[in-house]
Amino acid sequence: MVGVIGAGAASPQGEDWAYEVGRLIALRGAVLVCGGLGGVMAAACRGCVEAGGETLGILPGPEGQAANPWVTHPVVTNMGHARNVIIAHTAQALVAVEGEYGTLSEIAIALKLGRTVAALGGWPGIRGVSYVDSPAAAVDLIFQHL
Amino acid sequence: MVGVIGAGAASPQGEDWAYEVGRLIALRGAVLVCGGLGGVMAAACRGCVEAGGETLGILPGPEGQAANPWVTHPVVTNMGHARNVIIAHTAQALVAVEGEYGTLSEIAIALKLGRTVAALGGWPGIRGVSYVDSPAAAVDLIFQHL
Amino acid sequence: MVGVIGAGAASPQGEDWAYEVGRLIALRGAVLVCGGLGGVMAAACRGCVEAGGETLGILPGPEGQAANPWVTHPVVTNMGHARNVIIAHTAQALVAVEGEYGTLSEIAIALKLGRTVAALGGWPGIRGVSYVDSPAAAVDLIFQHL
Amino acid sequence: MVGVIGAGAASPQGEDWAYEVGRLIALRGAVLVCGGLGGVMAAACRGCVEAGGETLGILPGPEGQAANPWVTHPVVTNMGHARNVIIAHTAQALVAVEGEYGTLSEIAIALKLGRTVAALGGWPGIRGVSYVDSPAAAVDLIFQHL
Repeated sequence: MVGVIGAGAASPQGEDWAYEVGRLIALRGAVLVCGGLGGVMAAACRGCVEAGGETLGILPGPEGQAANPWVTHPVVTNMGHARNVIIAHTAQALVAVEGEYGTLSEIAIALKLGRTVAALGGWPGIRGVSYVDSPAAAVDLIFQHL
Repeated sequence: MVGVIGAGAASPQGEDWAYEVGRLIALRGAVLVCGGLGGVMAAACRGCVEAGGETLGILPGPEGQAANPWVTHPVVTNMGHARNVIIAHTAQALVAVEGEYGTLSEIAIALKLGRTVAALGGWPGIRGVSYVDSPAAAVDLIFQHL
Repeated sequence: MVGVIGAGAASPQGEDWAYEVGRLIALRGAVLVCGGLGGVMAAACRGCVEAGGETLGILPGPEGQAANPWVTHPVVTNMGHARNVIIAHTAQALVAVEGEYGTLSEIAIALKLGRTVAALGGWPGIRGVSYVDSPAAAVDLIFQHL
Repeated sequence: MVGVIGAGAASPQGEDWAYEVGRLIALRGAVLVCGGLGGVMAAACRGCVEAGGETLGILPGPEGQAANPWVTHPVVTNMGHARNVIIAHTAQALVAVEGEYGTLSEIAIALKLGRTVAALGGWPGIRGVSYVDSPAAAVDLIFQHL
Protein backbone atom coordinates (compact mmCIF):
# COMPACT_ATOMS: atom_id res chain seq x y z
CA MET A 1 0.00 0.00 0.00
CA VAL A 2 1.84 3.09 -1.28
CA GLY A 3 0.63 6.64 -0.79
CA VAL A 4 0.73 9.42 -3.35
CA ILE A 5 0.13 12.86 -1.89
CA GLY A 6 -0.11 16.23 -3.54
CA ALA A 7 -2.44 19.12 -4.10
CA GLY A 8 -5.80 19.23 -5.85
CA ALA A 9 -4.24 21.75 -8.22
CA ALA A 10 -1.01 20.61 -9.87
CA SER A 11 1.31 22.00 -12.52
CA PRO A 12 1.48 20.16 -15.85
CA GLN A 13 4.79 18.68 -14.75
CA GLY A 14 3.27 17.68 -11.42
CA GLU A 15 0.46 15.86 -13.20
CA ASP A 16 2.92 14.09 -15.48
CA TRP A 17 5.03 13.02 -12.51
CA ALA A 18 1.95 11.85 -10.62
CA TYR A 19 0.65 9.84 -13.58
CA GLU A 20 4.01 8.12 -13.94
CA VAL A 21 4.30 7.44 -10.21
CA GLY A 22 0.84 5.85 -10.28
CA ARG A 23 1.76 3.75 -13.28
CA LEU A 24 4.96 2.49 -11.65
CA ILE A 25 3.13 1.62 -8.42
CA ALA A 26 0.71 -0.52 -10.41
CA LEU A 27 3.56 -2.25 -12.24
CA ARG A 28 5.09 -3.14 -8.87
CA GLY A 29 1.81 -4.77 -7.86
CA ALA A 30 1.10 -2.38 -4.99
CA VAL A 31 -2.19 -0.63 -4.20
CA LEU A 32 -2.14 3.17 -4.41
CA VAL A 33 -3.69 5.15 -1.56
CA CYS A 34 -4.42 8.88 -1.85
CA GLY A 35 -6.91 11.58 -0.95
CA GLY A 36 -9.19 10.65 -3.84
CA LEU A 37 -9.75 14.13 -5.29
CA GLY A 38 -8.26 16.01 -8.28
CA GLY A 39 -4.87 17.31 -9.39
CA VAL A 40 -1.99 15.08 -8.30
CA MET A 41 -4.44 12.59 -6.79
CA ALA A 42 -6.44 12.16 -10.01
CA ALA A 43 -3.35 11.94 -12.21
CA ALA A 44 -1.76 9.31 -9.98
CA CYS A 45 -4.97 7.26 -9.83
CA ARG A 46 -5.34 7.44 -13.58
CA GLY A 47 -1.76 6.27 -14.13
CA CYS A 48 -2.29 3.41 -11.71
CA VAL A 49 -5.64 2.26 -13.10
CA GLU A 50 -4.52 2.51 -16.73
CA ALA A 51 -1.66 0.17 -15.84
CA GLY A 52 -4.07 -2.30 -14.27
CA GLY A 53 -3.72 -1.24 -10.63
CA GLU A 54 -6.11 -0.47 -7.80
CA THR A 55 -6.60 2.84 -5.99
CA LEU A 56 -7.93 3.66 -2.55
CA GLY A 57 -9.28 7.22 -2.25
CA ILE A 58 -9.63 8.44 1.34
CA LEU A 59 -12.14 11.23 0.85
CA PRO A 60 -12.52 14.25 3.15
CA GLY A 61 -16.22 14.92 2.55
CA PRO A 62 -19.48 13.02 3.05
CA GLU A 63 -19.98 11.84 -0.54
CA GLY A 64 -18.33 9.01 -2.42
CA GLN A 65 -19.22 10.71 -5.69
CA ALA A 66 -16.56 13.32 -4.98
CA ALA A 67 -13.92 10.73 -5.84
CA ASN A 68 -12.07 11.17 -9.11
CA PRO A 69 -13.05 8.63 -11.81
CA TRP A 70 -9.95 6.52 -11.27
CA VAL A 71 -10.58 5.73 -7.62
CA THR A 72 -11.49 2.05 -7.58
CA HIS A 73 -12.14 1.88 -3.81
CA PRO A 74 -13.53 5.10 -2.26
CA VAL A 75 -13.43 5.47 1.53
CA VAL A 76 -15.75 8.20 2.78
CA THR A 77 -14.55 9.78 6.02
CA ASN A 78 -16.41 13.11 6.33
CA MET A 79 -13.52 14.16 8.56
CA GLY A 80 -11.98 16.93 6.49
CA HIS A 81 -8.24 17.33 6.88
CA ALA A 82 -8.16 14.57 9.51
CA ARG A 83 -8.36 12.15 6.61
CA ASN A 84 -4.76 13.13 5.86
CA VAL A 85 -3.73 11.29 9.00
CA ILE A 86 -5.51 8.15 7.78
CA ILE A 87 -3.57 8.30 4.51
CA ALA A 88 -0.29 8.48 6.41
CA HIS A 89 -1.26 5.51 8.59
CA THR A 90 -2.56 3.41 5.71
CA ALA A 91 0.34 3.92 3.31
CA GLN A 92 3.50 2.02 4.17
CA ALA A 93 5.57 4.59 2.25
CA LEU A 94 4.65 7.75 0.35
CA VAL A 95 5.56 9.82 -2.68
CA ALA A 96 4.83 13.55 -2.43
CA VAL A 97 4.37 15.39 -5.72
CA GLU A 98 4.58 19.15 -5.36
CA GLY A 99 1.88 19.97 -2.84
CA GLU A 100 0.46 22.68 -0.65
CA TYR A 101 -0.21 22.84 3.08
CA GLY A 102 -2.37 19.71 3.10
CA THR A 103 0.49 17.76 1.57
CA LEU A 104 2.89 19.21 4.13
CA SER A 105 0.64 17.93 6.91
CA GLU A 106 0.68 14.45 5.36
CA ILE A 107 4.46 14.51 4.99
CA ALA A 108 4.78 15.52 8.64
CA ILE A 109 2.50 12.78 9.97
CA ALA A 110 4.12 10.17 7.71
CA LEU A 111 7.59 11.10 8.98
CA LYS A 112 6.29 11.04 12.56
CA LEU A 113 5.15 7.47 11.91
CA GLY A 114 8.57 6.55 10.53
CA ARG A 115 7.42 6.15 6.94
CA THR A 116 9.75 6.70 3.98
CA VAL A 117 8.70 9.83 2.08
CA ALA A 118 10.09 10.59 -1.38
CA ALA A 119 9.41 14.08 -2.73
CA LEU A 120 9.24 15.33 -6.31
CA GLY A 121 9.14 19.10 -6.31
CA GLY A 122 7.31 20.83 -3.51
CA TRP A 123 8.29 21.42 0.08
CA PRO A 124 12.10 21.71 0.24
CA GLY A 125 14.28 21.37 3.29
CA ILE A 126 12.11 19.10 5.43
CA ARG A 127 14.45 16.93 7.48
CA GLY A 128 13.71 13.26 6.85
CA VAL A 129 12.29 13.63 3.34
CA SER A 130 14.17 11.95 0.48
CA TYR A 131 14.24 14.42 -2.40
CA VAL A 132 14.32 12.77 -5.82
CA ASP A 133 14.16 14.07 -9.38
CA SER A 134 12.08 11.51 -11.25
CA PRO A 135 9.09 9.24 -10.71
CA ALA A 136 11.30 6.20 -11.27
CA ALA A 137 13.73 7.34 -8.57
CA ALA A 138 10.82 7.99 -6.19
CA VAL A 139 9.28 4.57 -6.68
CA ASP A 140 12.64 2.78 -6.56
CA LEU A 141 13.45 4.45 -3.27
CA ILE A 142 10.05 3.65 -1.78
CA PHE A 143 10.26 -0.03 -2.64
CA GLN A 144 13.80 -0.35 -1.32
CA HIS A 145 12.41 0.56 2.08
CA LEU A 146 9.34 -1.68 2.08
CA MET B 1 -19.84 -0.98 -1.30
CA VAL B 2 -21.83 -2.91 1.32
CA GLY B 3 -21.05 -2.87 5.03
CA VAL B 4 -21.12 -5.84 7.36
CA ILE B 5 -21.07 -4.89 11.01
CA GLY B 6 -20.99 -7.03 14.13
CA ALA B 7 -18.93 -7.79 17.16
CA GLY B 8 -15.41 -9.16 17.44
CA ALA B 9 -16.93 -12.07 19.37
CA ALA B 10 -19.79 -13.84 17.60
CA SER B 11 -21.88 -16.94 18.29
CA PRO B 12 -21.42 -19.92 15.98
CA GLN B 13 -24.69 -18.97 14.28
CA GLY B 14 -23.50 -15.36 13.97
CA GLU B 15 -20.32 -16.52 12.29
CA ASP B 16 -22.27 -18.75 9.91
CA TRP B 17 -24.62 -15.88 9.04
CA ALA B 18 -21.70 -13.51 8.53
CA TYR B 19 -19.84 -15.96 6.29
CA GLU B 20 -22.92 -16.38 4.13
CA VAL B 21 -23.60 -12.63 3.98
CA GLY B 22 -20.03 -12.10 2.84
CA ARG B 23 -20.34 -14.80 0.22
CA LEU B 24 -23.56 -13.33 -1.17
CA ILE B 25 -22.06 -9.83 -1.31
CA ALA B 26 -19.20 -11.20 -3.41
CA LEU B 27 -21.61 -13.01 -5.73
CA ARG B 28 -23.44 -9.72 -6.31
CA GLY B 29 -20.16 -8.12 -7.34
CA ALA B 30 -20.05 -5.62 -4.49
CA VAL B 31 -17.09 -4.78 -2.26
CA LEU B 32 -17.51 -5.59 1.43
CA VAL B 33 -16.55 -2.94 3.99
CA CYS B 34 -16.19 -3.74 7.69
CA GLY B 35 -14.12 -3.03 10.78
CA GLY B 36 -11.41 -5.46 9.73
CA LEU B 37 -11.05 -7.39 12.99
CA GLY B 38 -12.35 -10.79 14.20
CA GLY B 39 -15.69 -12.47 14.90
CA VAL B 40 -18.41 -11.32 12.54
CA MET B 41 -15.93 -9.19 10.62
CA ALA B 42 -13.53 -12.06 9.96
CA ALA B 43 -16.28 -14.51 9.04
CA ALA B 44 -17.84 -12.07 6.59
CA CYS B 45 -14.49 -11.25 5.01
CA ARG B 46 -13.70 -14.94 4.67
CA GLY B 47 -17.02 -15.64 3.00
CA CYS B 48 -16.49 -12.77 0.62
CA VAL B 49 -12.90 -13.60 -0.30
CA GLU B 50 -13.58 -17.32 -0.73
CA ALA B 51 -16.26 -16.38 -3.24
CA GLY B 52 -13.82 -14.18 -5.13
CA GLY B 53 -14.73 -10.83 -3.62
CA GLU B 54 -12.82 -7.92 -2.14
CA THR B 55 -12.89 -6.62 1.42
CA LEU B 56 -12.09 -3.23 2.90
CA GLY B 57 -11.18 -3.35 6.60
CA ILE B 58 -11.40 0.02 8.37
CA LEU B 59 -9.15 -0.64 11.34
CA PRO B 60 -9.37 1.17 14.70
CA GLY B 61 -5.72 0.86 15.70
CA PRO B 62 -2.36 2.00 14.32
CA GLU B 63 -1.30 -1.28 12.70
CA GLY B 64 -2.41 -2.86 9.45
CA GLN B 65 -1.31 -6.25 10.75
CA ALA B 66 -4.30 -6.25 13.09
CA ALA B 67 -6.52 -6.95 10.10
CA ASN B 68 -7.99 -10.42 9.82
CA PRO B 69 -6.41 -12.57 7.05
CA TRP B 70 -9.34 -12.03 4.67
CA VAL B 71 -9.07 -8.24 4.52
CA THR B 72 -7.78 -7.54 1.03
CA HIS B 73 -7.60 -3.73 1.51
CA PRO B 74 -6.75 -2.59 5.04
CA VAL B 75 -7.35 1.07 5.95
CA VAL B 76 -5.50 2.11 9.09
CA THR B 77 -7.26 4.92 10.96
CA ASN B 78 -5.80 4.88 14.51
CA MET B 79 -9.03 6.60 15.50
CA GLY B 80 -10.59 3.96 17.74
CA HIS B 81 -14.37 3.89 17.72
CA ALA B 82 -14.50 6.90 15.39
CA ARG B 83 -13.68 4.45 12.63
CA ASN B 84 -17.25 3.18 13.03
CA VAL B 85 -18.45 6.46 11.55
CA ILE B 86 -16.21 5.94 8.51
CA ILE B 87 -17.73 2.50 7.95
CA ALA B 88 -21.24 3.99 7.99
CA HIS B 89 -20.23 6.71 5.52
CA THR B 90 -18.37 4.35 3.19
CA ALA B 91 -21.00 1.61 3.00
CA GLN B 92 -24.02 2.42 0.87
CA ALA B 93 -26.09 -0.09 2.85
CA LEU B 94 -25.27 -2.36 5.78
CA VAL B 95 -26.01 -5.77 7.26
CA ALA B 96 -25.72 -6.05 11.06
CA VAL B 97 -25.05 -9.51 12.42
CA GLU B 98 -25.71 -9.77 16.17
CA GLY B 99 -23.43 -7.15 17.64
CA GLU B 100 -22.57 -5.30 20.82
CA TYR B 101 -22.40 -1.59 21.59
CA GLY B 102 -19.95 -0.83 18.79
CA THR B 103 -22.37 -2.33 16.30
CA LEU B 104 -25.21 -0.32 17.79
CA SER B 105 -23.21 2.86 17.22
CA GLU B 106 -22.69 1.89 13.58
CA ILE B 107 -26.38 1.12 13.11
CA ALA B 108 -27.25 4.51 14.60
CA ILE B 109 -24.89 6.50 12.39
CA ALA B 110 -25.93 4.52 9.31
CA LEU B 111 -29.60 5.27 9.97
CA LYS B 112 -28.74 8.92 10.61
CA LEU B 113 -27.17 8.97 7.14
CA GLY B 114 -30.28 7.39 5.62
CA ARG B 115 -28.66 4.06 4.84
CA THR B 116 -30.65 0.82 4.66
CA VAL B 117 -29.71 -1.43 7.58
CA ALA B 118 -30.72 -5.10 7.64
CA ALA B 119 -30.25 -6.90 10.96
CA LEU B 120 -29.77 -10.60 11.68
CA GLY B 121 -30.08 -11.19 15.42
CA GLY B 122 -28.78 -8.54 17.74
CA TRP B 123 -30.27 -5.19 18.71
CA PRO B 124 -34.06 -5.49 18.54
CA GLY B 125 -36.57 -2.69 18.41
CA ILE B 126 -34.46 0.01 16.74
CA ARG B 127 -36.79 2.13 14.64
CA GLY B 128 -35.61 2.17 11.03
CA VAL B 129 -33.79 -1.17 11.05
CA SER B 130 -35.14 -3.93 8.77
CA TYR B 131 -35.10 -7.15 10.74
CA VAL B 132 -34.59 -10.25 8.63
CA ASP B 133 -34.10 -13.94 9.40
CA SER B 134 -31.57 -15.15 6.87
CA PRO B 135 -28.44 -13.94 5.09
CA ALA B 136 -30.24 -14.22 1.75
CA ALA B 137 -33.08 -12.02 2.97
CA ALA B 138 -30.58 -9.48 4.31
CA VAL B 139 -28.64 -9.25 1.08
CA ASP B 140 -31.78 -9.19 -1.08
CA LEU B 141 -33.17 -6.32 0.95
CA ILE B 142 -29.91 -4.38 0.79
CA PHE B 143 -29.62 -4.64 -2.97
CA GLN B 144 -33.25 -3.68 -3.54
CA HIS B 145 -32.38 -0.33 -1.97
CA LEU B 146 -29.10 0.34 -3.79
CA MET C 1 -16.96 16.45 33.14
CA VAL C 2 -20.53 15.33 32.56
CA GLY C 3 -22.08 14.87 29.13
CA VAL C 4 -25.55 15.88 28.07
CA ILE C 5 -26.65 14.35 24.80
CA GLY C 6 -29.82 14.80 22.81
CA ALA C 7 -31.13 15.98 19.50
CA GLY C 8 -30.94 19.39 17.89
CA ALA C 9 -34.73 19.39 17.87
CA ALA C 10 -36.34 18.70 21.25
CA SER C 11 -39.88 18.68 22.60
CA PRO C 12 -40.83 21.42 25.10
CA GLN C 13 -40.52 18.84 27.87
CA GLY C 14 -37.14 17.74 26.52
CA GLU C 15 -35.90 21.31 26.61
CA ASP C 16 -37.18 21.78 30.16
CA TRP C 17 -35.50 18.56 31.26
CA ALA C 18 -32.24 19.54 29.53
CA TYR C 19 -32.25 23.02 31.10
CA GLU C 20 -32.71 21.52 34.55
CA VAL C 21 -30.04 18.86 33.97
CA GLY C 22 -27.61 21.62 32.95
CA ARG C 23 -28.48 23.67 36.01
CA LEU C 24 -27.94 20.74 38.36
CA ILE C 25 -24.60 19.88 36.75
CA ALA C 26 -23.43 23.44 37.39
CA LEU C 27 -24.61 23.30 41.02
CA ARG C 28 -22.53 20.15 41.50
CA GLY C 29 -19.49 22.04 40.24
CA ALA C 30 -18.97 19.88 37.16
CA VAL C 31 -18.27 21.03 33.60
CA LEU C 32 -20.93 20.15 31.03
CA VAL C 33 -19.81 18.65 27.71
CA CYS C 34 -22.13 18.37 24.74
CA GLY C 35 -22.33 18.68 20.97
CA GLY C 36 -22.61 22.47 21.14
CA LEU C 37 -25.59 22.93 18.82
CA GLY C 38 -29.34 23.59 19.43
CA GLY C 39 -32.27 21.80 21.01
CA VAL C 40 -31.29 19.69 24.01
CA MET C 41 -27.70 20.88 23.72
CA ALA C 42 -28.62 24.58 23.85
CA ALA C 43 -31.13 24.14 26.66
CA ALA C 44 -28.64 22.21 28.78
CA CYS C 45 -25.87 24.75 28.16
CA ARG C 46 -28.21 27.60 29.04
CA GLY C 47 -29.24 25.92 32.30
CA CYS C 48 -25.61 25.31 33.16
CA VAL C 49 -24.36 28.81 32.35
CA GLU C 50 -27.26 30.57 34.05
CA ALA C 51 -26.34 28.66 37.21
CA GLY C 52 -22.73 29.79 36.92
CA GLY C 53 -21.30 26.72 35.19
CA GLU C 54 -19.03 26.10 32.22
CA THR C 55 -19.86 24.29 28.99
CA LEU C 56 -17.69 22.54 26.44
CA GLY C 57 -19.30 22.28 22.98
CA ILE C 58 -17.71 19.66 20.72
CA LEU C 59 -18.83 20.94 17.33
CA PRO C 60 -19.22 18.79 14.20
CA GLY C 61 -18.53 21.50 11.62
CA PRO C 62 -15.62 23.77 10.74
CA GLU C 63 -16.88 26.95 12.43
CA GLY C 64 -16.88 27.93 16.09
CA GLN C 65 -19.71 30.37 15.41
CA ALA C 66 -22.07 27.42 14.99
CA ALA C 67 -21.98 26.96 18.77
CA ASN C 68 -25.10 27.92 20.71
CA PRO C 69 -24.71 31.15 22.75
CA TRP C 70 -24.25 29.25 26.03
CA VAL C 71 -21.17 27.31 24.97
CA THR C 72 -18.34 28.84 26.97
CA HIS C 73 -15.60 26.65 25.44
CA PRO C 74 -16.17 25.65 21.80
CA VAL C 75 -14.07 22.83 20.35
CA VAL C 76 -14.12 22.77 16.56
CA THR C 77 -13.62 19.29 15.14
CA ASN C 78 -14.87 19.43 11.51
CA MET C 79 -15.35 15.68 11.85
CA GLY C 80 -19.13 15.39 11.56
CA HIS C 81 -20.65 12.53 13.50
CA ALA C 82 -17.22 11.34 14.62
CA ARG C 83 -17.37 14.15 17.15
CA ASN C 84 -19.96 12.04 18.99
CA VAL C 85 -17.18 9.64 19.88
CA ILE C 86 -15.15 12.49 21.39
CA ILE C 87 -18.11 13.48 23.57
CA ALA C 88 -18.38 9.92 24.87
CA HIS C 89 -14.66 9.81 25.64
CA THR C 90 -14.53 13.24 27.25
CA ALA C 91 -17.58 12.88 29.51
CA GLN C 92 -17.08 10.68 32.56
CA ALA C 93 -20.84 10.00 32.68
CA LEU C 94 -23.72 11.13 30.49
CA VAL C 95 -27.38 12.12 30.61
CA ALA C 96 -29.39 11.45 27.44
CA VAL C 97 -32.48 13.59 26.95
CA GLU C 98 -34.83 12.21 24.29
CA GLY C 99 -32.67 12.01 21.19
CA GLU C 100 -32.51 10.71 17.66
CA TYR C 101 -29.99 8.47 15.92
CA GLY C 102 -27.02 10.71 16.76
CA THR C 103 -27.87 10.39 20.43
CA LEU C 104 -28.19 6.63 20.08
CA SER C 105 -24.68 6.50 18.65
CA GLU C 106 -23.37 8.47 21.63
CA ILE C 107 -25.20 6.21 24.09
CA ALA C 108 -23.69 3.16 22.37
CA ILE C 109 -20.12 4.45 22.44
CA ALA C 110 -20.48 5.65 26.03
CA LEU C 111 -21.71 2.21 27.15
CA LYS C 112 -18.89 0.58 25.19
CA LEU C 113 -16.48 2.73 27.21
CA GLY C 114 -18.14 1.67 30.46
CA ARG C 115 -19.68 5.08 31.19
CA THR C 116 -22.85 5.46 33.24
CA VAL C 117 -25.68 6.68 31.00
CA ALA C 118 -28.92 8.01 32.49
CA ALA C 119 -31.79 8.50 30.05
CA LEU C 120 -34.81 10.79 30.24
CA GLY C 121 -37.27 9.91 27.51
CA GLY C 122 -35.89 8.70 24.22
CA TRP C 123 -34.42 5.34 23.24
CA PRO C 124 -36.06 2.64 25.37
CA GLY C 125 -34.83 -0.86 25.99
CA ILE C 126 -31.10 -0.34 25.54
CA ARG C 127 -29.32 -2.75 27.84
CA GLY C 128 -27.00 -0.89 30.19
CA VAL C 129 -28.86 2.44 30.18
CA SER C 130 -30.33 3.64 33.47
CA TYR C 131 -33.80 4.99 32.73
CA VAL C 132 -34.91 7.77 35.08
CA ASP C 133 -37.92 10.05 35.22
CA SER C 134 -36.58 13.41 36.35
CA PRO C 135 -33.49 15.58 35.89
CA ALA C 136 -32.74 15.31 39.59
CA ALA C 137 -32.80 11.51 39.44
CA ALA C 138 -30.54 11.58 36.36
CA VAL C 139 -27.96 13.83 37.97
CA ASP C 140 -28.08 12.00 41.30
CA LEU C 141 -27.45 8.72 39.54
CA ILE C 142 -24.59 10.12 37.49
CA PHE C 143 -22.78 11.55 40.48
CA GLN C 144 -23.19 8.37 42.51
CA HIS C 145 -21.08 6.65 39.86
CA LEU C 146 -18.33 9.28 39.51
CA MET D 1 -8.95 30.71 21.80
CA VAL D 2 -5.20 30.71 21.05
CA GLY D 3 -3.21 27.58 20.27
CA VAL D 4 0.25 26.75 21.54
CA ILE D 5 1.89 23.89 19.70
CA GLY D 6 5.22 22.19 20.24
CA ALA D 7 6.79 18.90 21.09
CA GLY D 8 6.43 16.75 24.19
CA ALA D 9 10.18 17.13 24.62
CA ALA D 10 11.41 20.72 24.66
CA SER D 11 14.74 22.43 25.26
CA PRO D 12 15.09 24.53 28.44
CA GLN D 13 14.73 27.64 26.27
CA GLY D 14 11.65 26.13 24.58
CA GLU D 15 10.04 25.51 27.94
CA ASP D 16 10.82 29.06 29.08
CA TRP D 17 9.36 30.48 25.89
CA ALA D 18 6.26 28.29 26.19
CA TYR D 19 5.71 29.28 29.82
CA GLU D 20 5.91 32.95 28.91
CA VAL D 21 3.61 32.53 25.89
CA GLY D 22 1.06 30.83 28.14
CA ARG D 23 1.32 33.60 30.72
CA LEU D 24 0.80 36.32 28.11
CA ILE D 25 -2.20 34.51 26.63
CA ALA D 26 -3.80 34.46 30.08
CA LEU D 27 -3.07 38.15 30.61
CA ARG D 28 -4.85 38.91 27.32
CA GLY D 29 -7.91 37.05 28.62
CA ALA D 30 -7.81 34.33 25.98
CA VAL D 31 -8.17 30.58 26.52
CA LEU D 32 -5.13 28.47 25.59
CA VAL D 33 -5.67 25.34 23.49
CA CYS D 34 -2.98 22.70 23.06
CA GLY D 35 -2.35 18.98 22.85
CA GLY D 36 -2.51 18.57 26.62
CA LEU D 37 0.67 16.54 27.13
CA GLY D 38 4.21 17.41 28.30
CA GLY D 39 7.12 19.58 27.17
CA VAL D 40 5.99 22.74 25.41
CA MET D 41 2.35 21.90 26.10
CA ALA D 42 2.85 21.51 29.85
CA ALA D 43 5.03 24.61 30.15
CA ALA D 44 2.52 26.75 28.26
CA CYS D 45 -0.41 25.44 30.31
CA ARG D 46 1.48 26.10 33.51
CA GLY D 47 2.28 29.65 32.48
CA CYS D 48 -1.34 30.23 31.56
CA VAL D 49 -2.84 28.74 34.71
CA GLU D 50 -0.37 30.45 37.05
CA ALA D 51 -1.47 33.76 35.52
CA GLY D 52 -5.13 32.90 36.14
CA GLY D 53 -6.00 31.55 32.71
CA GLU D 54 -7.79 28.50 31.37
CA THR D 55 -6.37 25.70 29.23
CA LEU D 56 -8.00 23.25 26.87
CA GLY D 57 -5.97 20.06 26.30
CA ILE D 58 -6.99 18.09 23.20
CA LEU D 59 -5.60 14.67 24.11
CA PRO D 60 -4.60 11.98 21.59
CA GLY D 61 -5.26 8.95 23.78
CA PRO D 62 -8.27 7.42 25.54
CA GLU D 63 -7.56 8.70 29.05
CA GLY D 64 -8.12 12.14 30.55
CA GLN D 65 -5.51 11.37 33.19
CA ALA D 66 -2.80 11.70 30.54
CA ALA D 67 -3.30 15.47 30.63
CA ASN D 68 -0.59 17.53 32.23
CA PRO D 69 -1.55 18.98 35.65
CA TRP D 70 -2.21 22.45 34.20
CA VAL D 71 -4.91 21.42 31.76
CA THR D 72 -8.12 22.83 33.21
CA HIS D 73 -10.41 21.38 30.50
CA PRO D 74 -9.29 18.03 29.06
CA VAL D 75 -10.87 16.85 25.81
CA VAL D 76 -10.34 13.13 25.21
CA THR D 77 -10.29 12.24 21.52
CA ASN D 78 -8.64 8.80 21.28
CA MET D 79 -7.81 9.78 17.71
CA GLY D 80 -4.02 9.94 17.86
CA HIS D 81 -2.45 12.46 15.52
CA ALA D 82 -5.85 13.38 14.10
CA ARG D 83 -6.31 15.43 17.25
CA ASN D 84 -3.74 17.84 15.77
CA VAL D 85 -6.35 18.81 13.20
CA ILE D 86 -8.85 19.62 15.96
CA ILE D 87 -6.30 21.92 17.61
CA ALA D 88 -5.82 23.81 14.34
CA HIS D 89 -9.58 24.17 13.88
CA THR D 90 -10.25 25.21 17.48
CA ALA D 91 -7.49 27.80 17.83
CA GLN D 92 -8.13 31.08 16.06
CA ALA D 93 -4.37 31.70 15.87
CA LEU D 94 -1.36 29.69 17.01
CA VAL D 95 2.13 30.03 18.45
CA ALA D 96 4.57 27.23 17.59
CA VAL D 97 7.46 26.74 20.00
CA GLU D 98 10.24 24.59 18.55
CA GLY D 99 8.51 21.35 17.63
CA GLU D 100 8.92 18.08 15.82
CA TYR D 101 6.88 16.45 13.05
CA GLY D 102 3.63 16.61 14.99
CA THR D 103 4.05 20.36 15.34
CA LEU D 104 4.81 20.65 11.63
CA SER D 105 1.52 18.90 10.87
CA GLU D 106 -0.34 21.36 13.07
CA ILE D 107 1.42 24.34 11.43
CA ALA D 108 0.45 22.98 8.01
CA ILE D 109 -3.22 22.46 8.84
CA ALA D 110 -3.43 25.85 10.58
CA LEU D 111 -1.99 27.61 7.53
CA LYS D 112 -4.35 25.65 5.29
CA LEU D 113 -7.21 27.03 7.39
CA GLY D 114 -5.85 30.56 7.04
CA ARG D 115 -4.79 30.91 10.68
CA THR D 116 -1.96 33.20 11.75
CA VAL D 117 0.97 31.11 12.98
CA ALA D 118 3.86 32.69 14.89
CA ALA D 119 6.94 30.52 15.38
CA LEU D 120 9.64 30.65 18.03
CA GLY D 121 12.52 28.38 17.05
CA GLY D 122 11.70 25.21 15.23
CA TRP D 123 10.69 24.63 11.61
CA PRO D 124 12.35 27.32 9.48
CA GLY D 125 11.43 28.34 5.99
CA ILE D 126 7.75 27.42 5.96
CA ARG D 127 5.98 29.91 3.70
CA GLY D 128 3.20 31.65 5.59
CA VAL D 129 4.67 31.30 9.09
CA SER D 130 5.60 34.51 10.93
CA TYR D 131 8.95 33.93 12.57
CA VAL D 132 9.46 35.90 15.79
CA ASP D 133 12.19 36.01 18.42
CA SER D 134 10.35 36.42 21.70
CA PRO D 135 7.14 35.28 23.39
CA ALA D 136 5.97 38.89 23.57
CA ALA D 137 6.44 39.34 19.83
CA ALA D 138 4.60 36.08 19.16
CA VAL D 139 1.60 37.03 21.30
CA ASP D 140 1.52 40.61 19.99
CA LEU D 141 1.46 39.34 16.44
CA ILE D 142 -1.26 36.79 17.15
CA PHE D 143 -3.57 39.33 18.77
CA GLN D 144 -3.08 41.86 16.01
CA HIS D 145 -4.66 39.33 13.67
CA LEU D 146 -7.60 38.28 15.87
